Amino acid sequence: MLNVILNHRSIRKYTSQDIPDSLLNDILEAGIRASTTGNMQVYSIVVTRDVERRKKLAPLHFSQPMVAQAPVVLTFCADFNRFNKWCEQRNAPPGYDNFLSFMTASIDALLVAQNVCLAAESKGLGICYLGTTTYMADKIIDLLELPKGVVPVTTVTVGYPGETPELVDRLPLDAVLHNETYQDYSFEDIDRIYHDKENLEENIGFVQENNKENLAQVFTDVRYKKADNEHFSQVLLSVLKKQGFM
Amino acid sequence: MLNVILNHRSIRKYTSQDIPDSLLNDILEAGIRASTTGNMQVYSIVVTRDVERRKKLAPLHFSQPMVAQAPVVLTFCADFNRFNKWCEQRNAPPGYDNFLSFMTASIDALLVAQNVCLAAESKGLGICYLGTTTYMADKIIDLLELPKGVVPVTTVTVGYPGETPELVDRLPLDAVLHNETYQDYSFEDIDRIYHDKENLEENIGFVQENNKENLAQVFTDVRYKKADNEHFSQVLLSVLKKQGFM
Repeated sequence: MLNVILNHRSIRKYTSQDIPDSLLNDILEAGIRASTTGNMQVYSIVVTRDVERRKKLAPLHFSQPMVAQAPVVLTFCADFNRFNKWCEQRNAPPGYDNFLSFMTASIDALLVAQNVCLAAESKGLGICYLGTTTYMADKIIDLLELPKGVVPVTTVTVGYPGETPELVDRLPLDAVLHNETYQDYSFEDIDRIYHDKENLEENIGFVQENNKENLAQVFTDVRYKKADNEHFSQVLLSVLKKQGFM
Repeated sequence: MLNVILNHRSIRKYTSQDIPDSLLNDILEAGIRASTTGNMQVYSIVVTRDVERRKKLAPLHFSQPMVAQAPVVLTFCADFNRFNKWCEQRNAPPGYDNFLSFMTASIDALLVAQNVCLAAESKGLGICYLGTTTYMADKIIDLLELPKGVVPVTTVTVGYPGETPELVDRLPLDAVLHNETYQDYSFEDIDRIYHDKENLEENIGFVQENNKENLAQVFTDVRYKKADNEHFSQVLLSVLKKQGFM
């Protein structure tokens, strides 16, 4: 088990082999054993296997090729719609049209997502998370026909690995760990924490390719830009309002 | 591995046995192998072992007894503080003071949390998630001294199991699954989906104890009330503003 966790790589190329229904079912059954707030299970999983629909979904994930290539795409959604319908049907007026409930449902969805990923990896499948889901939630809602009360929070592509990438770097554990209280980072701490990452050959390459002074600028000026983040923040907040969480 | 996932139970009673540092370290090292957006690792984990601090933390989790009883309490935080400091130190103005970035960081924190939980369970430890974290984020921030850019999103208690609870119920898999597009629930679907849950002896007991007509009312009138959700939504939104994400 620990081995599966330690050997995780994001897989971005898949073989043409499909995933049998029974295997996908086993993985999802395992996934839904994840803890959920009050055992309310306020999430849904939308399975996209149809080639045409995957082609329509791909541009909503900034045309990352995995969406069209992987046999299975799973969209994990915060979902109070089902729970609300149950409450209404039982003369129990639901009070879940607010931000706290969105966070509760998002937490449920994300713990299930990670459970599904590890279950898939333990069966020899490869997965890749698509962080684009929160950026394009409005358009994903339209394509997957998500009703009020439902917001997509993450997407995972699943298939048999067609590549064996190296393990990617992580910051040293002590960089993300705090004992008892948060020990804020000094100038020297930051230099130390990011030293190895900044000196990876691959990252030095990114800096050069992008004509930047350093790796941090690749993030702020190229990959995760302020203007984009602000634009998509507004989109996402509108989505929360439209889907009944604000 | 699949076995660990399938056998998950929330453990709310722990033995007095402490968790060795080396074991906790192995679990956390495995945990941080989780996927993170752009490999930014925008999360932090605060480890609370000190008895006095756990006693202070307990009321912030509505005095759930696990906080004072478990040898280790882990608070998983969305954290752009470290990344922002790195960017600022590298002449790369960060653009992460917005809602999208809060969601990005929350997703990172939650995937790591679930990885840590499964790593812990694979080593024979028991865990319990505390959904109270998002309710009391403001007070947790004060106690754990979390700076701007950092918001706690979930908490996990960890220790050696002092109980062996039954596996809890889940809705049938097809209740949370949608093929290709979201198939909204009919009146009959809802009755079918919730039938087994409503007829569990334990849940019939909850309804009687609380003098309610049915299980849904136990949720709406007792456990997760509209007024509370609205109050804590406002608190959480204020926290996002104060911590620099709005």
